Amino acid sequence: MLDRDTASLRPVPDRSLTSYRCDFAWLGTSTEVERDVLIDVDGERIIRIAAATADRQAADAALALHGLTIPGMANCHSHAFHRAIRGRTQRGVGSFWTWREAMYEVAATLDPDSYHDLATATYAEMALAGITAVGEFHYLHHQRDGTPYADGNAMGAALVDAAREAGLRITLLDACYLHGGIGVRPDATQRRFSDGDAHRWAERADGIATARHAKVGAAIHSVRAVDPDSMAVVAEWAHARETSLHAHVSEQPAENEACLAAHDCTPVELFHRSAALDERFTAVHATHLTDGDVALLGAASCTCCCCPTTERDLADGIAPTRSLRDAGARLSLGSDSHAVIDLLEEARAVELDERLASGQRGTHDAAALLAAATHVGHASIGWPDAGRIEVGAVADLVTVRLDSVRLAGASADHLVEHVVFAGTAADVDHVVAGGRVVVRDGRHVTIDVPASLARSVTATIDLRSPR
Amino acid sequence: MLDRDTASLRPVPDRSLTSYRCDFAWLGTSTEVERDVLIDVDGERIIRIAAATADRQAADAALALHGLTIPGMANCHSHAFHRAIRGRTQRGVGSFWTWREAMYEVAATLDPDSYHDLATATYAEMALAGITAVGEFHYLHHQRDGTPYADGNAMGAALVDAAREAGLRITLLDACYLHGGIGVRPDATQRRFSDGDAHRWAERADGIATARHAKVGAAIHSVRAVDPDSMAVVAEWAHARETSLHAHVSEQPAENEACLAAHDCTPVELFHRSAALDERFTAVHATHLTDGDVALLGAASCTCCCCPTTERDLADGIAPTRSLRDAGARLSLGSDSHAVIDLLEEARAVELDERLASGQRGTHDAAALLAAATHVGHASIGWPDAGRIEVGAVADLVTVRLDSVRLAGASADHLVEHVVFAGTAADVDHVVAGGRVVVRDGRHVTIDVPASLARSVTATIDLRSPR
Repeated sequence: MLDRDTASLRPVPDRSLTSYRCDFAWLGTSTEVERDVLIDVDGERIIRIAAATADRQAADAALALHGLTIPGMANCHSHAFHRAIRGRTQRGVGSFWTWREAMYEVAATLDPDSYHDLATATYAEMALAGITAVGEFHYLHHQRDGTPYADGNAMGAALVDAAREAGLRITLLDACYLHGGIGVRPDATQRRFSDGDAHRWAERADGIATARHAKVGAAIHSVRAVDPDSMAVVAEWAHARETSLHAHVSEQPAENEACLAAHDCTPVELFHRSAALDERFTAVHATHLTDGDVALLGAASCTCCCCPTTERDLADGIAPTRSLRDAGARLSLGSDSHAVIDLLEEARAVELDERLASGQRGTHDAAALLAAATHVGHASIGWPDAGRIEVGAVADLVTVRLDSVRLAGASADHLVEHVVFAGTAADVDHVVAGGRVVVRDGRHVTIDVPASLARSVTATIDLRSPR
Repeated sequence: MLDRDTASLRPVPDRSLTSYRCDFAWLGTSTEVERDVLIDVDGERIIRIAAATADRQAADAALALHGLTIPGMANCHSHAFHRAIRGRTQRGVGSFWTWREAMYEVAATLDPDSYHDLATATYAEMALAGITAVGEFHYLHHQRDGTPYADGNAMGAALVDAAREAGLRITLLDACYLHGGIGVRPDATQRRFSDGDAHRWAERADGIATARHAKVGAAIHSVRAVDPDSMAVVAEWAHARETSLHAHVSEQPAENEACLAAHDCTPVELFHRSAALDERFTAVHATHLTDGDVALLGAASCTCCCCPTTERDLADGIAPTRSLRDAGARLSLGSDSHAVIDLLEEARAVELDERLASGQRGTHDAAALLAAATHVGHASIGWPDAGRIEVGAVADLVTVRLDSVRLAGASADHLVEHVVFAGTAADVDHVVAGGRVVVRDGRHVTIDVPASLARSVTATIDLRSPR
């Protein structure tokens, strides 16, 4: 319990000091919450956390945050443009692969301006859901015919700008995407994904401008799109820069089969051979794994990014999250295709789908699920000092109101469980990201998000022409 | 398309006539929606459905429903008191069976007054989610020590009153519950569930007062709680009264194993032997089935009530919904334990969990899922003239607003898919149930639902003492 005035940093002169008083706060240890907590923020950092009773004068002057305040959430796997096909891929019988055709129709239409508008609205929807940093797995690099834009990173820059406007931090996980399948040339849509070879990918990635709110990481699209030699180049690039490296791993059985046929090993084994696996590596969709794959990911302390609402939607399957955790891997979360954007739903889905697979309850408790949504996620996209409510951390504070019908009746002793297992994005009421208020009373402070979504999604869909 | 003034009924003199003008309405055929639809309601019935352009004067005077209007949804499997343990059973490792211990702690506390309050708040939460009728699977019949209340149906009457106050119709599925397991006496909590034998159950059930908004159906709790001879009595009672008969079927493998050991057959086969299976039978949790079970349920045109959010929560497993449908069974939905109350989430979960199990997308399309949530569900709890927007049907109109971040960007040609796969209870904005407005602008017209939930849940939990 918080019965002390914790160690505090001194405010920096001439910086804005804001105090928040939280009805309840989850400080990241177990499933306990603290009551009546004062959090002082100087600029973008938390400088003091104290019991409100320890400084009544400051507490009275503080801005009240009613509900449960948790750290900002990290959406570690996003393809922002997929937001445009929400609701539009649910007709007819199909598979992951037929869904991809619909997704490619949109991928073919975007340019830096239209992608900027769509991503701004999508990231603003994320902000409303309590997401304060996004890992954007980005491969829409070039013009539709595959030739680079005048600024080779125009599309990436549009995403970085979009995140700034929406009030989020971004890690641009710039993806190397060279082939249309193992030994297959990129098709008409995939041409805009490809830099030709891994060295040209690396040159372009070196040119991306970072910013206070924006970092760059690397991504290997998949074993389908990147050959082993190129993988090694990307991994080496990421290691040299001490930055995050993400990859789609084993989302569908078909990619495992293709990898076995071509390389006589699983995708995880191929990443291992390419020296990709370490504590900065995130395996996205670590779904169809062998025991050996699990052991490799665990031994290297990799993070496994679960995207369960997408993995349900795309008929991918259920990741072996219990085995991964037991082997030493960490879990993070992503809304991926944005079929829905709700990290509380993603968090509980990790445990609920494990229950479906195992018949057991309680593999991942609410604190572990919230850790995946917050500090583990932030660390996996290169923000190790975010996603925690502690002195010195980036000031991301997400307040979930407790007076909705979903959360009414929750008591302090089960608040974290109640929020994780029954709360939704609609219950997020107030969001501070990097010290700035982004959401107030459930509304984005600068963007009319539904109107922006409607406008940018419609514009994107209207431009679409079937491939 | 609705290009005609459909057949209309004449208004009854001296009854209140209300006209609604819907931006979009789903009239229950395919995934198409109609634009700008006028719906006239006289008393509790729909008397006309027309294109607004066909009667501009009426359209101009009508009450505007902005969004997509669908029929009222039926929550076909509810244990209202479980709402009190939302968020309170998610700590520690366990199973369905350890969860049941926590549930029994609450079951032990309630009396007619406290259950009335809790159920009123829970049903009002349902109303806010667009639910206009509930099938309450009711077995909390007697006093804590097992002796009947002075009015033997005091608890059931409390539920019927609660539904009326919340503005819903109710089918009290009065459950026969005699044993604590096959050949086992009821334990301390279960005593209040038992009438002693099936004939005394039937006598009591015959005494339940129905009402305009309330019907009575029968329920066999499970093969654990009801022996085959007693099952036959309950089934005969339901057949004689031409009323719904529901039963928990195969929620957990353990009950199948116990049934096989005791009766040398599966639960479904036992229900079949007891002449329970027909088109008025609903199998709740038709989860762990043999091919023979599927064939029996299909051949008898039974309804199978899926409760996927509960079946995830309780680690039950995934029902074979594709096989059941192909065999001739119908699907309905229930929120059961009320871990969440959101029939749109239940609807998509049927398809999404099928995708996890099969690796295929598109087994149940959005129209089929919405049929399960509406007219199939209503029929399975004895309201065959509800859950449809058609002339002569009960006037249940649920309007989902399309300007939330979840639904922004939806277009008319994919509206049903967008709402079913991305909408939530939080998007339900207006509800008419049986001709009466129950929810307006997302708020219940007579009940402060969060406050009622907080009060009644807290009162219930405070009374609880560990068994």
